[in-house]
Amino acid sequence: MRPDGRKNDELRSIQIQTGYIIHPEGSVLITVGQTKVICNASIEDRVPPFMRGQKKGWITAEYSMLPRATPERTMRESARGKIGGRTMEIQRLIGRALRSVVALDQIGERTIWIDCDVIQADGGTRTASITGAFVAMVLAFKKAMDRGQIEKIPVHSYLAATSVGIHPVYGSILDLCYKEDSTTDVDMNIVMNSKGHFVEIQGTGEEATFSDEELAELIRLAKKGIGELIAAEKSVIGDILTEQKVGTGK
Amino acid sequence: MRPDGRKNDELRSIQIQTGYIIHPEGSVLITVGQTKVICNASIEDRVPPFMRGQKKGWITAEYSMLPRATPERTMRESARGKIGGRTMEIQRLIGRALRSVVALDQIGERTIWIDCDVIQADGGTRTASITGAFVAMVLAFKKAMDRGQIEKIPVHSYLAATSVGIHPVYGSILDLCYKEDSTTDVDMNIVMNSKGHFVEIQGTGEEATFSDEELAELIRLAKKGIGELIAAEKSVIGDILTEQKVGTGK
Amino acid sequence: MRPDGRKNDELRSIQIQTGYIIHPEGSVLITVGQTKVICNASIEDRVPPFMRGQKKGWITAEYSMLPRATPERTMRESARGKIGGRTMEIQRLIGRALRSVVALDQIGERTIWIDCDVIQADGGTRTASITGAFVAMVLAFKKAMDRGQIEKIPVHSYLAATSVGIHPVYGSILDLCYKEDSTTDVDMNIVMNSKGHFVEIQGTGEEATFSDEELAELIRLAKKGIGELIAAEKSVIGDILTEQKVGTGK
Amino acid sequence: MRPDGRKNDELRSIQIQTGYIIHPEGSVLITVGQTKVICNASIEDRVPPFMRGQKKGWITAEYSMLPRATPERTMRESARGKIGGRTMEIQRLIGRALRSVVALDQIGERTIWIDCDVIQADGGTRTASITGAFVAMVLAFKKAMDRGQIEKIPVHSYLAATSVGIHPVYGSILDLCYKEDSTTDVDMNIVMNSKGHFVEIQGTGEEATFSDEELAELIRLAKKGIGELIAAEKSVIGDILTEQKVGTGK
Amino acid sequence: MRPDGRKNDELRSIQIQTGYIIHPEGSVLITVGQTKVICNASIEDRVPPFMRGQKKGWITAEYSMLPRATPERTMRESARGKIGGRTMEIQRLIGRALRSVVALDQIGERTIWIDCDVIQADGGTRTASITGAFVAMVLAFKKAMDRGQIEKIPVHSYLAATSVGIHPVYGSILDLCYKEDSTTDVDMNIVMNSKGHFVEIQGTGEEATFSDEELAELIRLAKKGIGELIAAEKSVIGDILTEQKVGTGK
Amino acid sequence: MRPDGRKNDELRSIQIQTGYIIHPEGSVLITVGQTKVICNASIEDRVPPFMRGQKKGWITAEYSMLPRATPERTMRESARGKIGGRTMEIQRLIGRALRSVVALDQIGERTIWIDCDVIQADGGTRTASITGAFVAMVLAFKKAMDRGQIEKIPVHSYLAATSVGIHPVYGSILDLCYKEDSTTDVDMNIVMNSKGHFVEIQGTGEEATFSDEELAELIRLAKKGIGELIAAEKSVIGDILTEQKVGTGK
Repeated sequence: MRPDGRKNDELRSIQIQTGYIIHPEGSVLITVGQTKVICNASIEDRVPPFMRGQKKGWITAEYSMLPRATPERTMRESARGKIGGRTMEIQRLIGRALRSVVALDQIGERTIWIDCDVIQADGGTRTASITGAFVAMVLAFKKAMDRGQIEKIPVHSYLAATSVGIHPVYGSILDLCYKEDSTTDVDMNIVMNSKGHFVEIQGTGEEATFSDEELAELIRLAKKGIGELIAAEKSVIGDILTEQKVGTGK
Repeated sequence: MRPDGRKNDELRSIQIQTGYIIHPEGSVLITVGQTKVICNASIEDRVPPFMRGQKKGWITAEYSMLPRATPERTMRESARGKIGGRTMEIQRLIGRALRSVVALDQIGERTIWIDCDVIQADGGTRTASITGAFVAMVLAFKKAMDRGQIEKIPVHSYLAATSVGIHPVYGSILDLCYKEDSTTDVDMNIVMNSKGHFVEIQGTGEEATFSDEELAELIRLAKKGIGELIAAEKSVIGDILTEQKVGTGK
Repeated sequence: MRPDGRKNDELRSIQIQTGYIIHPEGSVLITVGQTKVICNASIEDRVPPFMRGQKKGWITAEYSMLPRATPERTMRESARGKIGGRTMEIQRLIGRALRSVVALDQIGERTIWIDCDVIQADGGTRTASITGAFVAMVLAFKKAMDRGQIEKIPVHSYLAATSVGIHPVYGSILDLCYKEDSTTDVDMNIVMNSKGHFVEIQGTGEEATFSDEELAELIRLAKKGIGELIAAEKSVIGDILTEQKVGTGK
Repeated sequence: MRPDGRKNDELRSIQIQTGYIIHPEGSVLITVGQTKVICNASIEDRVPPFMRGQKKGWITAEYSMLPRATPERTMRESARGKIGGRTMEIQRLIGRALRSVVALDQIGERTIWIDCDVIQADGGTRTASITGAFVAMVLAFKKAMDRGQIEKIPVHSYLAATSVGIHPVYGSILDLCYKEDSTTDVDMNIVMNSKGHFVEIQGTGEEATFSDEELAELIRLAKKGIGELIAAEKSVIGDILTEQKVGTGK
Repeated sequence: MRPDGRKNDELRSIQIQTGYIIHPEGSVLITVGQTKVICNASIEDRVPPFMRGQKKGWITAEYSMLPRATPERTMRESARGKIGGRTMEIQRLIGRALRSVVALDQIGERTIWIDCDVIQADGGTRTASITGAFVAMVLAFKKAMDRGQIEKIPVHSYLAATSVGIHPVYGSILDLCYKEDSTTDVDMNIVMNSKGHFVEIQGTGEEATFSDEELAELIRLAKKGIGELIAAEKSVIGDILTEQKVGTGK
Repeated sequence: MRPDGRKNDELRSIQIQTGYIIHPEGSVLITVGQTKVICNASIEDRVPPFMRGQKKGWITAEYSMLPRATPERTMRESARGKIGGRTMEIQRLIGRALRSVVALDQIGERTIWIDCDVIQADGGTRTASITGAFVAMVLAFKKAMDRGQIEKIPVHSYLAATSVGIHPVYGSILDLCYKEDSTTDVDMNIVMNSKGHFVEIQGTGEEATFSDEELAELIRLAKKGIGELIAAEKSVIGDILTEQKVGTGK
């Protein structure tokens, strides 16, 4: 049995608290088991240089952990003077994943900045960040719609992410906590949308490798988890796929 | 009248939530009005090179703001690749203030790391950090006493901090929110201990200057506020000045 | 038809030139179509701090492109003063992939440094780097065996990598050149070993997403390509899985 | 008695040599006892980005010590690749203090750069820098008036700074040399203008704290010292508060 | 006798392979004995800020060594986060040398970027870089002439470089390999043009000094070597001093 | 005639003020015309890692200019966060030159740190730095002899440096001021010792080139100037080549 008594295909408990910080256009505290991430979405009225003049927007993400989000204190990247490889991988992944479900040509030349700050870590911080960031981004789009900046929510699908892995004792498992993650042979992060399509698959077997059958089982677990995560998103932000600016007559 | 209806000598409402993050030896979320700071205290079993071999401990602090702690998003210092002057001033101040009330020779060759992360800012983040960090540090010392690392809480006084200022409309005021702070002529941060002594006075009049009489009035306000802050600390951590390891017979 | 006339499941032509640079323990120039990467493997007689005292070795990789490996000149990362996110992702991937096929406890406390320097780029530089680096690493192990540092080649499987993708015009294709890569909706890098197991799957659909069926087809193409790449490796380095130090009697 | 035989309320000897370096608009070598600082003021015909379009000027300061200004050689900040916290605090303080006595709206969109380079240190380098920088800045304004860039000296008060402290042996003392500073319990830097108003108070009691009475005594000492420093400034730069461009008829 | 059997006034064997990399406007692999340098020349249609508006072009160079160009692996400068002093000296030297033979006012407001990447080092990498870079630059100018960007090759002289030195055993020698260079007392790099004039002389005697007579002998050797290097250049790029755009009628 | 009325083979006026800063083991203010450099020599009782265990000492130099040493303010390298190429070239040159006249095996495992800080620049700062640094170093050795750290001055020759150049109007000239330097075609820095041998020759003709005859004339001028500079050194530090620890009986 898994350390916290879960079944192999069982997610940890999820809370998505909206309006967590008062200043951002969209703000969420997502809690997945003991993992807690503040996800803030900000709207900036310009795009980075490489996007200028294309009449499209951009979405970019930054990710960080507080020094004591982890059992041992980790040094701040600002004190090191540079951002590590793991952080860069994660923030590129979050940005890419969110862009896959947004019609960038419907938001004007604006940048959506996503800030994911892990205040407490117990495994799965990057996937919790994606799920939380999706909700924060949608809240920011609702605010932009209220302000009259956009006509409708420019999102064509829900998006969520989870981890799966092959553990030497428990076998194939869904939503790994840190204790599981650190003893797992194969580790896979999967991002999917509400159409059941893949957005990202990142599977790694540093200590081991995996076969076709194992890949199929991992994907099955991930799909189950992502379905439940998207249900949790809907209970918080409602049906966004048809939402429009009130009274626009469209 | 002040923007939030307070009297000139009135603090904002204060909450000090202990055990906020599960990993650190001491963890606090301090809320002062709309300002919210996570203060974590970590114990490391060694001291920095310049302190080695002196049979004394050290206390050092780091301070940071989430990008959207503020109304406008601010760039991360990790992304800039260096820590700004304001951050350095604040983290040096926090460390110095905490060291003034601790008997460093009673904690062995250990470092207490203080991490103050502002998740929401509305003025007074450095003084809220000092007050919150003091409580987090005491909690860490209690944990160290439980673990048998130290015999008693090595703290000889409570410590708290607040801001005072001279406002062109409201006059001399206590505990400035951001709106007041950004329109104030003279701004002063005061750190005091529970013996009524000063630990730090940092008064600045960039747009104006101040007289002896104004200085005296600002100090009077600060003393009132700090008295109330120390009362709030006591309600959370109790009477620590006599606390000892249970059963040591000392 | 694809720009260079290949069939959808056809690799570009491959050359693996060994002994390319005289100084490294293992050195290879790998050519995949127009992509050319110098892969050097160096043996250092110590491990990084986090590995010390474990009686195991370590493998780490660095990746770089010459400024004019690309059609437009790109600025050097040494001139920028920092290594970009893409580079970090790739060097972490190369290191992880190589470690998956090596018995680190058979090489002593040594580090194998892998340097992949792209001198000419036409798509697929990271997968060419993995394939070339595997050969360079094996050559370094042969040298270490000659020197009596190790008893046998500590590699339990061949390793190779390729890219696959879904192109709006050509459909599912193997081994993308730059022209294809820059116009592809879904892009996937796959690393496999000679047992037919996955080491890494990194699939991304920034402009699009992909279904279960499409994933299955991409994996089929990758397996075909990797089989051919491993055959090319064998023609250069022979049967390494049973190779031992001559005359050790083991 | 104090190490150099001074009375507790006695400044060290002061020289202010003007025109020290030939290139800057204003240049001063200030000597306070054994402390020597080159203070140069430069006029640049533009303001930093955050000040543009406001029809006002800006004053900014940089501070540095030669490696052997101190008894032990200290590493250059250029060699470290970053500016330390102490340096940043000091340069922010110098800039803030100078801006408090200048009518920034009378200098056009210009920046006054103040460079304080300590060539020999014996305590009180930051306060000597402020006093010297004030004179260098006034000299630069005189040059600007000669050039017809401004109509009159845009300074509404003289400015000077000194340190005071509470020493375990000597008690409350004025203008600490290094030997005193390094053994002092409470250390305070005070900046005042010629109207007898405070511009900055920075009091710190790392090893000790201080009472209301002690604060009052320190302020009394500082006022005496600053009065004498301002007299020294006047003997060098004359009565600047009424100085105007000759023959403008205004 | 010298380690590789050469006479004291004998160059190592030289190959200059043109068109080595497909993307740059000019590309050369120069081989001098065991030293191999990829020299690429790129044309950018703008000049650096300090050259703007002068209707002239600019030539700038960058130099780097692969980590295993050397017998021991050297750390990448991108990983260090800064470019070392030796690299800076070399790239400033290469740029200066090339600019001495080019009519910058004949190339418009364009920058010629020279990238010298040493893939294998055995002494003399900076002088091989200059010789190879000259050829790559001329090839780029030929491409620019083909594109109609310039009317004729804006080069008024050939340019080449070599090293000479005084060895404690062999005496005065030409074109030092690494083994010689590392045991030499006096080391001199000389850059000359085809008119027999000096462009740069950089002579250094860290372990020894040298007399007028020794200087004269070193210069004699260098002249002989540079004559042969320029002959090698001519055999590759032909007579460039009269070359013009075909059919321009000028 | 030259701008300051000098003859072509005439040095500017030279002052070498010893004991300029009180803390360093050796300290000099050297003035060459309007160029002023503080040269400090410090003795550290250890060597850098690459020299350990060789029972020899090391000499290293750092060079910097105050921002307003120049007519236009230049940005500090500490503020840029990195040391420029020109600075690196100069500090490497100074260190190399000094090491050429010192018996490193007579100073024990000690490092001599040379700090050359240009407080006012008018051309020739690097050569003035070498001449001044030589005197400061000798003063530090005298101090070390007084302290009993060494038996005699470990210097086997005097050392000085100057610049020469070919000017389009004045012809071949000695000791260029800034006005001359910035309009000169060929610029050469020459370092020589008191035996009349060359230590360094660095000749550059960016805008022009130079012939054998011109080289000979430049060397003749440099020799004359260096002879006078060494005479000035002798008048300040006396005959050091035979100086020994008093009463050692050796």
